[in-house]
Amino acid sequence: MSSLFLRTLREDPADAEVPSHKLLVRAGYVRRVAPGGYSWLPLGMRVLRNIENVVREEMNAIGGQEIQFPALLPREPYEATGRWTEYGDSLFRLKDRKGADYLLGPTHEELFTLTVKGEYSSYKDYPVVLYQIQTKYRDEARPRAGILRGREFVMKDSYSFDLDDDGLKHSYELHREAYIKIFDRLGLDYVIVAATSGAMGGSASEEFLAVAETGEDTYVRSTESAFAANVEAVVTPPPPERPVEGLPEAQPHYTPNTPTIDSLVEFLNFKTELGRTFTAADTLKNVMVKIRRPGEQDWQILGIGVPGDREVDQKRLEASLEPAEVALLDEADFAANPFLVKGYIGPKSLRDNGVRYLVDPRVVTGTAWVTGADKPDHHVVDLVAGRDFTPDGTIEAAEVREGDASPDGHGTLVAARGIEIGHIFQLGRKYADAFSLDALGADSKPVRITMGSYGIGVSRLVAAIAEQHNDELGLVWPRAVAPFDVHVVIAGKDDAVAAGAEKLAADLDAAGVQVLLDDRKSTPGVKFADAELIGVPTILVVGRGLAKGVVEVKDRESGERTEIAVDEAVAHLVKLVRS
Amino acid sequence: MSSLFLRTLREDPADAEVPSHKLLVRAGYVRRVAPGGYSWLPLGMRVLRNIENVVREEMNAIGGQEIQFPALLPREPYEATGRWTEYGDSLFRLKDRKGADYLLGPTHEELFTLTVKGEYSSYKDYPVVLYQIQTKYRDEARPRAGILRGREFVMKDSYSFDLDDDGLKHSYELHREAYIKIFDRLGLDYVIVAATSGAMGGSASEEFLAVAETGEDTYVRSTESAFAANVEAVVTPPPPERPVEGLPEAQPHYTPNTPTIDSLVEFLNFKTELGRTFTAADTLKNVMVKIRRPGEQDWQILGIGVPGDREVDQKRLEASLEPAEVALLDEADFAANPFLVKGYIGPKSLRDNGVRYLVDPRVVTGTAWVTGADKPDHHVVDLVAGRDFTPDGTIEAAEVREGDASPDGHGTLVAARGIEIGHIFQLGRKYADAFSLDALGADSKPVRITMGSYGIGVSRLVAAIAEQHNDELGLVWPRAVAPFDVHVVIAGKDDAVAAGAEKLAADLDAAGVQVLLDDRKSTPGVKFADAELIGVPTILVVGRGLAKGVVEVKDRESGERTEIAVDEAVAHLVKLVRS
Repeated sequence: MSSLFLRTLREDPADAEVPSHKLLVRAGYVRRVAPGGYSWLPLGMRVLRNIENVVREEMNAIGGQEIQFPALLPREPYEATGRWTEYGDSLFRLKDRKGADYLLGPTHEELFTLTVKGEYSSYKDYPVVLYQIQTKYRDEARPRAGILRGREFVMKDSYSFDLDDDGLKHSYELHREAYIKIFDRLGLDYVIVAATSGAMGGSASEEFLAVAETGEDTYVRSTESAFAANVEAVVTPPPPERPVEGLPEAQPHYTPNTPTIDSLVEFLNFKTELGRTFTAADTLKNVMVKIRRPGEQDWQILGIGVPGDREVDQKRLEASLEPAEVALLDEADFAANPFLVKGYIGPKSLRDNGVRYLVDPRVVTGTAWVTGADKPDHHVVDLVAGRDFTPDGTIEAAEVREGDASPDGHGTLVAARGIEIGHIFQLGRKYADAFSLDALGADSKPVRITMGSYGIGVSRLVAAIAEQHNDELGLVWPRAVAPFDVHVVIAGKDDAVAAGAEKLAADLDAAGVQVLLDDRKSTPGVKFADAELIGVPTILVVGRGLAKGVVEVKDRESGERTEIAVDEAVAHLVKLVRS
Repeated sequence: MSSLFLRTLREDPADAEVPSHKLLVRAGYVRRVAPGGYSWLPLGMRVLRNIENVVREEMNAIGGQEIQFPALLPREPYEATGRWTEYGDSLFRLKDRKGADYLLGPTHEELFTLTVKGEYSSYKDYPVVLYQIQTKYRDEARPRAGILRGREFVMKDSYSFDLDDDGLKHSYELHREAYIKIFDRLGLDYVIVAATSGAMGGSASEEFLAVAETGEDTYVRSTESAFAANVEAVVTPPPPERPVEGLPEAQPHYTPNTPTIDSLVEFLNFKTELGRTFTAADTLKNVMVKIRRPGEQDWQILGIGVPGDREVDQKRLEASLEPAEVALLDEADFAANPFLVKGYIGPKSLRDNGVRYLVDPRVVTGTAWVTGADKPDHHVVDLVAGRDFTPDGTIEAAEVREGDASPDGHGTLVAARGIEIGHIFQLGRKYADAFSLDALGADSKPVRITMGSYGIGVSRLVAAIAEQHNDELGLVWPRAVAPFDVHVVIAGKDDAVAAGAEKLAADLDAAGVQVLLDDRKSTPGVKFADAELIGVPTILVVGRGLAKGVVEVKDRESGERTEIAVDEAVAHLVKLVRS
């Protein structure tokens, strides 16, 4: 440590909010260079490399083959898939000296697809899994939390290429298992949540989230089962359908000044002649949006019906309608469609005017609703689904709430937060279609390849692990990622103590144990504080006990101290490190 | 090989001129993605990693500490050193979503300096050597030769930080020795040439050049000694001074229509009354330039005198005058300085008008010259240095020619070509000055830090090694960098042959030997051709001999084939690989 390029800090950095950010800076693992741009100092490099190696080993174990693309990429392939534009401000764009357009790769689907197309031609070539561990660039609007969300970061991205859907499922499953091994080896507490596809387009998808209150991803999990999902991916369990026979007839009512659900419910419950009490859950709120499909010019109006006690969740709505763009109607839209009576829209005028109408899965046949009567100041009561109106389909757009039934039928949902550390995703044929990636089949006919996409945020993992492994004194690294195996503290000014510690360090090194030796001329107090802050899992204190032939082994995590004979120290520690 | 992501090509790529480019593409190590941008396929990745590891080991051995900076860097530090502008078109510049200026790091002096300043403060902290192995970006005007000169490439760059010049010399020497070990381990034939500093500013500097006819760096070496240098760094050995006593007096002559050296010499040799024969080497040509020092507005006129048989070498001139800018005088300059009589400029009017006058080192006291007489159509003969004129100093500006005496006094110079693979450089205090990098000395006074800069072109090394290690059949990797240790070829359709080969491959793998097994259903001819092309140093052929208990070991480099007993094959190959 007397020569290690490291200066620990006593104060938290001013811009740090989460523990991993504070501690990684204080303990000298990383330094900020620009917004979302960090330097890795020697300790940080060692942790990053350890993580990379675990990822590499498990990727190789499932037959993944490592390659590497440039980060500086020409515009053309991204233009072909529309992503040059779609990425918006998140893409770093630049020009070369000749004025040609380039980008800094945020993700490499295009290159992987083109590369496989360039090399492979026959069905015999497949399947193949390619991966890279590479620096990526995204111009995040709000880089935050140190290396948790940077603008330059290291990712492992892999892609599987298969001839058919079963092959893709198998490749997906292999990655899923590899990811479980990776995150287990890294000592992470994580959940696997059902996820939507994000901007990637495609079908089955799961996210690996490191459980952390400071995470920016919200998910829900069941109180009683292993179910966990992104809020966007929660599928509402529909109630059973009910017979429509014998239900009261739909009746329009004059309901003046009831543009909101609350005012409507209050008004209805004041009308004693209805003989019932209504809640917001008995009302059907119709929210009008417009959507535009990729490559299309025109917007299309769409009605979304949700129970009045729930808001429309923008993210769930967008995820359900992807890849179409979604926007709320503006005044001009209402003016152009006078049949939309603001505040009193009902299913009838939507149907009569050919507007597509999608409802919450709770709106099943036989459910009766209070909803708009398409006339100012009028609502209709007892409008029964399947009898008085038939939606064009269902949509997951209503908000998910704690206490909702878990989709798997076991328990109810609670909200939790996590850090996205991995994402696996059955991408399908989107990119193969964009670049006509075909294999020549056994029958000499072309077979369109289907792809899987699998990512791990390698540099983010350093922060995610730190987020889970720390205490009030500092970092507490799991053995698999720790920058060193043993932190040897020379606790004493005695030359014999220093010599003894140096010998132990040398012997440990010779035995293949990675040792950080604190040989500085500081007080034991400073040294102990730094050892706790840096977080090497085992601290070996060599002090005055040496004269009596003993040294102290301290477990960083438990704080437990054990005196052991100096002669047995190396064997003891080798065993501990290898266990 | 049946699953390796590899397709070898029979044809050279259309844009390839040098062997390494042709072979690395044909053998499936790299693929072009953009001008100067290449993908590393699995075989290429393995070679690149092997080289990185050799570099890392030797850097760690001299106490280097690995760190990593972002490649995407803010403008400010580069603005502070002037390099934001100085780099010109070679710098990739871009803006983020907020309009802030960024660049893609071509080299990281600024960041290293600022980082050390950020962590270190006391003289006790020094010396320190930091390095990174990182992707760099330069917008080369003419990216060429595949990965030899790309726009995105991997470099090891390190910097030493010392308290004084002796410390810097020591750090420089450590790097020099480490580089020798690295390039020796990588099996390279290279020379260490004295070099100038390039755009970096500073003093002692050497380049490591891989000897290659296809290299774009020219250097000279002695026919009889180990002397080698960049042309810019050749120091002209001055002839001995001679007594001026007894030399003929300087005489002006009317020399009409002799604006060139050739016409002058012809004219003089026609004048029989001079009683001598002149050659161009007897004339002194005065070339006028103007220079501007960094940070200054004004240009200053400078006269450069070189023997008339030599041209001024622009690069040598610029290197000698660095960091000043150099330009030839234009018509306006001549008009503003009417004492400059074009074609007839002599030392006298330069001195009389206060113009600085630097001469070639061959112009020593006692040498007599024919030169301009500062009057149209007139030259002066027998103008003697040290008697009739005294220059303000010497300058290395004249061209270096094959046959010139070697500066070390042994043999003469011949020209050769090489690929720059490493550069070591006593940078001095340029960047420490720019950022006020001081250590607090033992006497509590600040000590300005002095730096060394040391680079290795890691990805370029893949090409440089390939350039030296190939034959008409393909690549011939040195063992230290080869993508695999042994290439096992199944040469036969027999199931027993395949089973035998697979067992040998598995046994070798278990013994820690890296094996590439060609288990494809191709003809032996195709397999042998690919094995030669790929260039793994040892090829193990398992064929019909297996029935008689023998296999064939072929040395890729020598082509030598040895039959060995199958039972001894593993032990034999393990020994070979470890040797």
